[in-house]
This record gives sequence, C-alpha cells and structure tokens, in this order.
Amino acid sequence: MIRKFLPILEWGKGYGGAMLTNDLIAALIVTIMLIPQSLAYAMLAGLPPEIGLYASMLPIIAYALFGTSRTLAVGPVAVVSLMTLAAAGNVGTPGSAEFIAAALVLALLSGVILLAMGLLRLGFLANLLSHPVVSGFITASGIIIATSQIKSILGIKANGEAMPGLLRTLAENIGDTNVPTLIIGVLATAFLFWVRKGLKPLLMRFGMAVRAADLTAKAGPIFAVAISTLAVLMLDLESRGVKVIGEIPQSLPPITIPLFDAALWQSLFIPALLISIIGFVESVSVAQTLAAKRRQRINPNQELIGLGAANVAAGFTGGYPVTGGFARSVVNFDAGAETPAAGAFTAIGIALAALFLTPLLYALPIATLAATIIVAVLSLVDFKTPREIFRYSKPDFAAMTATIIVTLLAGVEPGVIAGVGLSLALYLWRASRPHAAIVGRVPDSEHFRNVKRHKVYTDPRILTIRIDESLTYFNARWLEDYVLEQVAQQPSVRHVILMCPAVNAIDASALESLEAINHRLEDGEIHMHLSEVKGPVMDALKRSDFLHELSGKVFLSQNAAFAAAIAIADAEENLDIEGDPLFARGMI
Amino acid sequence: MIRKFLPILEWGKGYGGAMLTNDLIAALIVTIMLIPQSLAYAMLAGLPPEIGLYASMLPIIAYALFGTSRTLAVGPVAVVSLMTLAAAGNVGTPGSAEFIAAALVLALLSGVILLAMGLLRLGFLANLLSHPVVSGFITASGIIIATSQIKSILGIKANGEAMPGLLRTLAENIGDTNVPTLIIGVLATAFLFWVRKGLKPLLMRFGMAVRAADLTAKAGPIFAVAISTLAVLMLDLESRGVKVIGEIPQSLPPITIPLFDAALWQSLFIPALLISIIGFVESVSVAQTLAAKRRQRINPNQELIGLGAANVAAGFTGGYPVTGGFARSVVNFDAGAETPAAGAFTAIGIALAALFLTPLLYALPIATLAATIIVAVLSLVDFKTPREIFRYSKPDFAAMTATIIVTLLAGVEPGVIAGVGLSLALYLWRASRPHAAIVGRVPDSEHFRNVKRHKVYTDPRILTIRIDESLTYFNARWLEDYVLEQVAQQPSVRHVILMCPAVNAIDASALESLEAINHRLEDGEIHMHLSEVKGPVMDALKRSDFLHELSGKVFLSQNAAFAAAIAIADAEENLDIEGDPLFARGMI
Repeated sequence: MIRKFLPILEWGKGYGGAMLTNDLIAALIVTIMLIPQSLAYAMLAGLPPEIGLYASMLPIIAYALFGTSRTLAVGPVAVVSLMTLAAAGNVGTPGSAEFIAAALVLALLSGVILLAMGLLRLGFLANLLSHPVVSGFITASGIIIATSQIKSILGIKANGEAMPGLLRTLAENIGDTNVPTLIIGVLATAFLFWVRKGLKPLLMRFGMAVRAADLTAKAGPIFAVAISTLAVLMLDLESRGVKVIGEIPQSLPPITIPLFDAALWQSLFIPALLISIIGFVESVSVAQTLAAKRRQRINPNQELIGLGAANVAAGFTGGYPVTGGFARSVVNFDAGAETPAAGAFTAIGIALAALFLTPLLYALPIATLAATIIVAVLSLVDFKTPREIFRYSKPDFAAMTATIIVTLLAGVEPGVIAGVGLSLALYLWRASRPHAAIVGRVPDSEHFRNVKRHKVYTDPRILTIRIDESLTYFNARWLEDYVLEQVAQQPSVRHVILMCPAVNAIDASALESLEAINHRLEDGEIHMHLSEVKGPVMDALKRSDFLHELSGKVFLSQNAAFAAAIAIADAEENLDIEGDPLFARGMI
Repeated sequence: MIRKFLPILEWGKGYGGAMLTNDLIAALIVTIMLIPQSLAYAMLAGLPPEIGLYASMLPIIAYALFGTSRTLAVGPVAVVSLMTLAAAGNVGTPGSAEFIAAALVLALLSGVILLAMGLLRLGFLANLLSHPVVSGFITASGIIIATSQIKSILGIKANGEAMPGLLRTLAENIGDTNVPTLIIGVLATAFLFWVRKGLKPLLMRFGMAVRAADLTAKAGPIFAVAISTLAVLMLDLESRGVKVIGEIPQSLPPITIPLFDAALWQSLFIPALLISIIGFVESVSVAQTLAAKRRQRINPNQELIGLGAANVAAGFTGGYPVTGGFARSVVNFDAGAETPAAGAFTAIGIALAALFLTPLLYALPIATLAATIIVAVLSLVDFKTPREIFRYSKPDFAAMTATIIVTLLAGVEPGVIAGVGLSLALYLWRASRPHAAIVGRVPDSEHFRNVKRHKVYTDPRILTIRIDESLTYFNARWLEDYVLEQVAQQPSVRHVILMCPAVNAIDASALESLEAINHRLEDGEIHMHLSEVKGPVMDALKRSDFLHELSGKVFLSQNAAFAAAIAIADAEENLDIEGDPLFARGMI
C-alpha cells in the first residue's frame, strides 16, 4: 500500500553503481539547460527571474518522491507560465508584490487540486480535453508566447494576454526600438535556430557521436547566454539601453506561506483548476511517451499526486505553478537518466547555481532570454496536425479551429474553457444520436442485417430495431423519438423487437424511456420484445419492474424473437378472422 | 418550410364544428382552474398576483402559434416560479420594482435562449440532465415550495430560498401566528386534499359520469377560493389580521420593455439558462406524454421555439418566466381540448377575468392560495422513484440523492448545477472505462467469445481484444492503457488483434491513440491488426495515414485475422530457427 504512494521504495532498493553515474551525467546536462530556461519562463510569467530557479528545486524533489515516471523533469514550462501571467494579472500588475503572492497561491491551489484529484482517483476528468483541442490550445499559446517576446527583442514595452492587445501595444511602441538590443535579439534567435537545425549535423561531420552531438546542440542556449553576456560586459551595452537581468539574490529558495485570503483563493480557483488540468494533460502525455520507449508504465492517478506534491512544494518555496516539461524531459531521457534520482541531482545543481553562479548572470541581456523562449515555443506550433485532423474529421477540426481562434483573440483561459465546452458539446451531440438500424433476416440464415444495405426478409407486422450503443440519459430521449417515429411510419406494425447485442449498459434514464416506449406502444396495441440482451444488462433489468410491465418477451436470439413474433401475429390474425362477422356467418 | 415553423398552418385548415366546441369547453374549465393558480404562483415567485394573470395570456397565444403540442398549456408553474424567486432575489427584495424588472428580464432572456437553442437545433443539450437528477430536483423543489407556504398558512413572516433559512425564520416567527388565518389555511388545505382524493368517488357514487366527476374535482380550488373569500367578507376577518390578496388592477397586460442593462443581463444569464433548461425538460416530458396518448408527435426543437416565443411574449407583457405545466395540461387534455386554439380561448378567458372579475377577488385570503400551492406541489414530491432507482442503479441513485440534498440545503440554482455536474461526472466516469474483452475462438466454430466466460481456444503468441464501444476522446487514454497493460502481462505476444464489431466511430483523439499503440507495439516488435471494422469507420480511417503506418493488416473477419496471425507467427518462428546458430550448424 505504502509502496503504491511512494514509488521511490520501488526503484530505491539496489540503487547505485552505473545507475548513479548515468543519473549524475543526465542531471549535469539538464542543469545547464535549465538555468537559462527557468529564468526565461519566470520572466514570461511576469515574475522576477530567481522565482524560476526556486520553482526548479523543491518541486523536482517532491515529484521524485511521489511520481511514477522515471524520467519526467518537472519545473516551469512555457504554457503554464503564460497561464500564470494571465491569472495573476487579474490580481496585480506583473512583478508587483500582489502578483507574486497570487502566483504562490496559484501553485498551492493547483497542488491541492491535483492531490485531491489523485486521491479521489479523478484522473479520468482529464479526458474532458480532446486531443485536437489540446493541440489547438498549445499551438495558439505558442504563437501568443512568441509574439509576447518580440517586445524584449526590440527593447520596447508591450503587454496583453492575447494577440489583439499584444499587436496593438507592439505597434504603438515600435518607435522606441533599441538598436543594440535588436541586434543581440536577432543574432541570438538566429544562432539558436541554427544550433537546433544545423549544429548537430556539423558536429557529426566533425566525427562526434550522434548522442554527444545531440546533447551539445541541446546545450545551445548556454552558449548564447555566455556570448551575449560577455558582449554586454565588453561593449558596455547596458549604458546604451540594453536591458539586462540585473542582480539576482544569491540564496536557496525562501520558505513562503501562501496568503490565506478567502476572496483571493476564490478568484484564483478556476484559473488554478485550468492550470492543473492543462499541466496534467501535458505532463502525462510526455511521461507516457517516454515510459513506452523503455517499456515502463506510468499510473495517471499517481501522477496527479506527484504533480500535486510538486506544486505544493512550489507554493511553499517561493515558486509558481510547475508541471512536467517536454523539452527538459526529453533531454533528461536522452542524457541517460535512469531514475528520479536524476531529478534530485538536478535540483542540487540548480541550488548550487542559485548560490554561486547568479552574479555571473548580472549582465545577461533579456533579449537573449526572449530568443530562447521564441525558439523553444515555436516548436510547439504545429501545422501538421490541423491538416491531418481536417482530413479525418470535420467536427474535430471545427473544435480545434475554434479553440485556436478563441485562444488567440481572447487569451488562454477563455481558450481552454471554449475548448472543453466545444469538445463536450460535440461529444454530447454525437452521443445523443446513437447508431441504430432497422434489420431483417438474411434469407436462408439466422443472421439479421440492416434493411438499407442488404436484401433481407422482413414482415410488415414486425419491426426489428438493432440498437448499436449503450443506452444512457444522453440518448434515452432520442430512443423514444426514434422508435415511435418508425412505428408511426409503418402502421401495420404489431410487434416491435429491440435487438440489443451492442447494448452494454442501460442507465436509469434509459430504463425510464424503455418503460415509456413500452406503455406508448401498448396504448397502440403493439407488443414490445427484446432480443440478445447481454448478461449484465439482463441482471440489472431483473432488479426493476420493467420485465413485469413489458408487453412482450425477452428472447435469447433475434431469430427466435422474429419467429415467435410472426407466430403470435399469425395467431392474432386468425383470432381476428374468427371474431369477424363474415367469419361468424360462415362467409370466410 | 414556413409550415415547419408555424404548426398552426397544419391544424388551422379545416378548423371548426365539433373541434371548436371541444376546445371552448376545455378552455372554460382550464380558465376556472388557472385563475387561482396563476395568482398563487405569482405570489410564490415574490411578484404581485396580477403578474400571474398577465403571464397566462399572451404567452399561451405565442405558444399556440409556434408549439407542436396540441394540448400543452403554457403559463406560470411552481418550480419555475421558485427559480424566479431565487434568481430575481439576488437583484432586489421580492415585490420591489427592481425585483419585478428582473423577473421581466428573466422571461425575455429565457425566451431568447430557448429561441436560439431551437433555431440552432440544440434541443439535445437538454440531455445534460438525467432523469434521476430531474426527478430529485423536482422532489426537492416541491418540499421547499410547500415549506415556504407554511408562513402564509400561519400568517407569519419567513423567507429563504432553501430549507435551512426557511425553517429558521419560521421557527423565529411562529409566536406571531394569526389564529383565524391558521383556521382558514388548515381548513382549505384539508378541503383541497379531500377534493383531490375523496370528491371524485363521492360524485361518482351519486351517479355522475367519470369524466365529469374528474373535472369537477379538478375545479376544487375554485370552491375553496369562493368559500374562504365569502368567510372573510361575512366574518370581517380582515380586521382580525387575515391577510387578503387586496386590490388587483383591472386591466389587460401592460406592454413592458425589459430593462436593457448589460450588468443586469449578465448577472441573470446563468439563472435564465437554468430556468430555460428545467422549463424545457419539464414541458417536453408533459407534451410527449400527452401526444403519445393520441398517437401524435411533438418536435423537441420546435418546442424550444414555441416556449421561447411564449417567454419573449411574457417579457413584453408584464409577465415572468413560463413553461408548459403538468396539471393544467392534463386538465386541458382530459377536458377534451383538440387544438392549440383551446389555449387561445383560455387566454381570452383569463383576459375577461382580469378585466371584470378581479374586484371579486379582493377578499381572497392568501392562506387559501398557499393551501392550493401546497396541495399542488406535494404531488411533485415522489418517494417511489428514488426507491426504484436505488434498486436499479446505485450511481444514478447517488446523483439523485446529491441533487436532492444540495437543492434542499443550498437552493434551486446550486441544485441544478450540482445535478448537471454529477450526471456528467458519472457519465464521463462510465464512458472513460468502456467494455472490452480478451476473446478466443469457440472450438469447431468461427465465433470468438470472452476468455473469462467461455472455454475457448487461444494462442500464446496472439492477443485478441474485442472493443465493445465506439472510441472517442473519453476512452482513448483508457484504450492505450488497457492494450499496453494486457501486452505487458503476456510477454509471449507477437500479434495484437483489435476486434471492432461494436466500434461505430473513432474520433481524432482515439485515432491518435491507435497510432500511439501501433508505434509502441512496433517498438516491441509486435504486429497490430484490426478485424471486423465497420464500413463508415473504415472509410474514415482511409482518410488518415493510420492504415499506411499500421504494422499489421485489417481483416474482414476475426476468424481470418486469427488464422493469418497464427500463420505469420509460425513462419516467423521457422525463420528464427533458420537464423539460429544451431540450425546453421545443421544441429536442428
């Protein structure tokens, strides 16, 4: 039991040797990559840069204790940073004391929500977001984030949570562009794009092994950081208006107690919920992808607990909402991390950097950090998936497009809400119109097939409807409509057979609808039968009054039902003939 | 086309004669019943009594023009009145000018919402409410309404939207009880209960026909109104503290323009949406029940338009939200109404009453109206359904119980929201764990059955999973987990066959999951095949890259798939033998 909640007990025994070495190497590489990334994402979220470092220490260790992925790297990520900016921006201006306090509360709330979902086994709620909606949301967020960084490349002011505000403020202030900043920003961006595309093949041409070349290329941002920092120092660019990161406190994360203010908590609850769900969905898909490559398994409900613990840790150590990041996890995996201990070593690496390296970062230009963000998030923008989805399913494409448009125009929160609403509306719409078919018997067989697709034998007195889905409250109303409509169209019908081979469940609403159909058919002197009812469904029906009230019978096979209905209809016709006055007078 | 939106064109031609007579008689009986009921429900909603009369005129005519039910009677109803009280109560104190203005806005907003849903064919959204949740909500509302009327029976003050507030204020003020009011209230309640249960059998014993006895009993409230009004006048009870209805303006409905105040509209939007949905669900189930008795059909989307028009009419003629009422519709039906013209005649009857009869109602005791409400709503309280649902389905029972508890403790709006949330959570939970089974071949047949329930033939190298439901974004994640879990448990597997006879659709999310499963199995050198894929599903798959990427094949029958997989596995084993060093050295 305890082992289930503390996966560390699983991999912890027998730890050491080669595993330790591999984890240490991976931690070193991830640490080098994380330093500029953590600073950059904190600034994207509107927070002082050191908060990005704080959010990369204790949360990683908390996840290492409770998470089930061996290689997931937890910390600040781009989309969650943007969502934090939007949510805390309603409380105070970015960078202000209230804003930072709101970010802490968001982390704690999000942690509590994730823990609660994990303990209540509510991981399935993440299914509320369909893949196309998530994909659309991430693409739109990537575009917003990249646009928001243009201001730092130009050295001007701009703000907004969505495209209209961002573009307007950028246009208004473009005259203030600082040329040295622009040069650094453009060079850094170009360099980072080249590192991403061109460095690895180059290194390999010079004889470096594939994996080493790959990891060197991943460390690209640290070169950009070093070179641009040196340039600022040597050319005294700060005096020419190039904004630098400035002084970062040399310290371990402070212990913080998030503000317990009921009104603040209430106003941040929905944003925290959205951050939790988006963070969880993203993190689980990264963790699943990496686990599958090594034939390992992750447990989504336990992942909620791991991410919840990480966010609670962020809330109490001066951080902001964190989740499993794609880029850092892949680097961790590729660098050979074998256990969550790699994460713990990364945390130690970041702690050492926070204590000793921050003075070296004083002259790091903000434009360089903006360049690392732009290059990182443009890889989130995905134009291939929309094309594929367009080809495969128009309704899914519509939900995705709407999510992209709402996110771009109105921001991340309206975007996620619209996405969930649309996915759900689409699902409901489909679920409320289930598949069903009028079937008849294939000649010389016991098989029954759709009358529209096959040449089959039917009887005008008998209507067989094959129901192809479970009956629930979503389609109960439809079922009533459909059956009564079919009966209304075929006035000769005396027997209706509902063929239920694909009905896996009938909920209380659908049971009520079946009862209503039975009574309404009875009012019209039509018998209702069931055939091929599955075992568990039959067991449930036996607990209700339905079987007593049913005007017809339940048959094991459709063939038996059809034969019996014909026999009864024949017998009734004979009875009618006997009751006929012509018959009584001997004229038939 | 125009005929579809104006059902009157359908039944209007050929109208006259016996139909006209029947409609006139029904209208007279419904009018007599409606006068006290309209006054009572308006007072329940916290509005002046005449607003109940206004809401019973133009809205009926608007519904008659656009609705599809021949016998539905539209007007104020108990549950919607309670919801109006709760919603408008957030804007002003009951009876105040702001409160009345809010009720008008609620009617208009609700009308616009219903019209929009009708024009966009969104009737399926009513499926969000499961039957048990609606039933629980109605029962809880009935209990709250009956409790809220005790104050008028006692002649004291009390208020609250839910049980805790109501019971507390009743207890605080019970010392102020007015004895003459109490006597009238108790006698009226007892009389009305007796009328409901005992009058019909009595009249029949005196030789009255069933239908006449039934309708006379239904007119019971008018006797209570007449007798108690006379008692007040003759015993001068008003001076003894018996509250009476007082002066009602003698007028036709005023033309009102609902306040166009953005903030007010925004704050009333959610309540109006809830009123619309509850009103629609109630009304449609009444209309469907009555239509089925005469083998008529109603069209839910057109019903939305009919009810929307009725509410817009209420908003512009001094009314408040209306919907199809159960009691009045049944009386209309039983009294022989044949067309919506009966509704129009009822509207004329109420108009005449509003113009000429209101002075007679001056001395009508409020306690009598309270008694009619109590007797009417107690029939909404249903203890049979919960028992049946408990027996049939525990999760549905849990959703119902939670809805009842939340409604009783926190009021109608939290009640509906909790109900929708719970229904949906329950549905999602079920939908995210679909049915699937590992199957094997029944010996000497081509049938494949669940390995857990039947003695079947399986091959350790082949895993066949029969998927019993459509694949959507709700269960896509589950599918990945389930397939990979099964494969992990059976290391000898070389071929996975997904048998899809019950898969009616695969949405874009599920397609992505199938692709992920395919790639992950391929990583483990396992082939993935599909069998018995339905035509439309296959057509959709052909529009994606999935079939090119699939490591195995798609087979028409499971039997063919199983045989082919065995053949390939055998061939591969032979190949392995040939590649074996022992084989090369001639030792095998």
